Amino acid sequence: MPELRKDPVIGRWVIISTERGKRPTDFTDRHGPRRPSFCPFCPGNEDKTPPEVLAFRSADSRRDGPGWEVRVVPNKFPALQIEGEMDRRAEGLYDKMHGIGAHEVIIETPHHELELSALPATAIEQVLRAYRERMADLKRDRRFRYLMLFKNSGEAAGATLDHGHTQIIATPIVPKRVQEELDGALQHFELKERCIFCDMIAQERGDGRRVVSESDDYIAYAPFASRFPFETWLLPKRHESHFEDGDPGSYASLAQILMVTLSRIGTALNQPPYNFVLHTSPCNQPQLDHYHWHFEIMPKLTKVAGFEWGTGFYINPTPPEEAAEYLRDMVLQETENERRTHDLDLKR
Amino acid sequence: MPELRKDPVIGRWVIISTERGKRPTDFTDRHGPRRPSFCPFCPGNEDKTPPEVLAFRSADSRRDGPGWEVRVVPNKFPALQIEGEMDRRAEGLYDKMHGIGAHEVIIETPHHELELSALPATAIEQVLRAYRERMADLKRDRRFRYLMLFKNSGEAAGATLDHGHTQIIATPIVPKRVQEELDGALQHFELKERCIFCDMIAQERGDGRRVVSESDDYIAYAPFASRFPFETWLLPKRHESHFEDGDPGSYASLAQILMVTLSRIGTALNQPPYNFVLHTSPCNQPQLDHYHWHFEIMPKLTKVAGFEWGTGFYINPTPPEEAAEYLRDMVLQETENERRTHDLDLKR
Repeated sequence: MPELRKDPVIGRWVIISTERGKRPTDFTDRHGPRRPSFCPFCPGNEDKTPPEVLAFRSADSRRDGPGWEVRVVPNKFPALQIEGEMDRRAEGLYDKMHGIGAHEVIIETPHHELELSALPATAIEQVLRAYRERMADLKRDRRFRYLMLFKNSGEAAGATLDHGHTQIIATPIVPKRVQEELDGALQHFELKERCIFCDMIAQERGDGRRVVSESDDYIAYAPFASRFPFETWLLPKRHESHFEDGDPGSYASLAQILMVTLSRIGTALNQPPYNFVLHTSPCNQPQLDHYHWHFEIMPKLTKVAGFEWGTGFYINPTPPEEAAEYLRDMVLQETENERRTHDLDLKR
Repeated sequence: MPELRKDPVIGRWVIISTERGKRPTDFTDRHGPRRPSFCPFCPGNEDKTPPEVLAFRSADSRRDGPGWEVRVVPNKFPALQIEGEMDRRAEGLYDKMHGIGAHEVIIETPHHELELSALPATAIEQVLRAYRERMADLKRDRRFRYLMLFKNSGEAAGATLDHGHTQIIATPIVPKRVQEELDGALQHFELKERCIFCDMIAQERGDGRRVVSESDDYIAYAPFASRFPFETWLLPKRHESHFEDGDPGSYASLAQILMVTLSRIGTALNQPPYNFVLHTSPCNQPQLDHYHWHFEIMPKLTKVAGFEWGTGFYINPTPPEEAAEYLRDMVLQETENERRTHDLDLKR
């Protein structure tokens, strides 16, 4: 059973795998990437994952067989375990509890070689619907306080498999980093009675220098205090606190801007490794006037080093105004444009 | 002039390089490491760094020439700039100020190929004295609130040069991560009237499972809530809030345990890339009863991915009890032992 342990000074939780700890020899082979040649996420290999919890598949296909467009399965090597009680307890000064939670994988496409941004907008829309459905289901489990949805793309961004996938980890506590954001947003709300993210969107739209892409419903911009070069946030322009409560009718539009934004980053930076993280309200809280869900997209171009670890400061060598200008000016490859135009035509 | 910008929600500061922003093409060459063949830190190349601010050198050698054992120079590409005023100002919702600070490099040895842990303890002691002297000097500048001392060793840990070096960045604000630690420690002190680090040391010594090495004056242990496999903290057993105010008479003993601890990590994990960070009290504050300086040593064995970015949670696949056991049991290579015995003999 994994264990959740709390740092007594700073209140930071860590998940300690106690099943079979990695030994020094597991880390000492540094002869470059050894990517497995076998892909458990490809069609035909469905029996190599735990049974699916959701799939969008053709009517004539069978559960845990090929014929799906998006497939969601529990992680075979979960960071947290679904069964059991939390059993909060002390060890002298320290706090710990059982690592209870859920860990699922959303396999975004049956096509092994297609990165999320290379999918047609209609396929990305399906992926977003899968996010929503799984989050809506997981939040029914009263033990969970937060649903962390994130994507690691590329080895340098922590992906262990190449086949495009997103992960959801449901945690029994609201993570510190999320709580800080909620607290900061609440402080602004108490002062101004306005959502700080709504205020930022208004300022970014007025200023324009950091805007990467914008549609009727969504905006993507490089945040003023970007930690990383080409960091980009994507937000709904209308106030919404929970991603999973958003109007699914707007997902076509969200898929479109997500595709355009990721493609611009991919084209400008030669398909860099990246992470994206969904920041949304805790799943056990009602609609919040002060918090506004958003995606944070972080290309992995620089290394986090001692200074960042020690301070929580980041050193960013690319001003966000310049990054946004590069991304705005990016001419998407013709084939991609064609795909998009074609795709848009289909939808009309 | 670099710019300090504050995230309006979470209060996190970032340093934005505005001189010459890195363009997309600066990041798109991913054909492995390109280490420069020329080393500006080697003896004979002293004119390739800014003039030295401190050196321990032989009596017959000349400033900014060879003949030194430890040499400290301003960073040629500083993250923060020493001249100017802070000029705090707003940009709509956002806060920014000039990136005022200092950024120095402590070149630990004239020997290009020797990692810090491979130096004799007497040489490590000199390095520690250089840390102390530079910190004592920098804290006289009233603009600085914090002196962040850190070491990046190996490319994966963010080092851009192989030649062993440590860096100090003086910042005009107390970094968020440091402030959180100070606040957490103060909270414990207000409740118990005891230093939480002193309490942890007592518990770790009593328990023993997480202890990596111990001497009369210092202890190294794997923290209960280790973020990373083989993460190791090194603390003075007696309460001290500021590293730079410690008794320099104890530096021989500190050098000894630092060498042993780093060597154990290096031997167990085949000389992994690592960061170490000195956590000490803000330089503009007096002795504190609630805070206790320490080094945090973090081998770079796992990748920080989306989940960590989103939550501030970490997933650690090696329980600290197992990591400490491996490190304790590590038989140091015979040549290293000989060097150490020899070195100890010299000191006696």
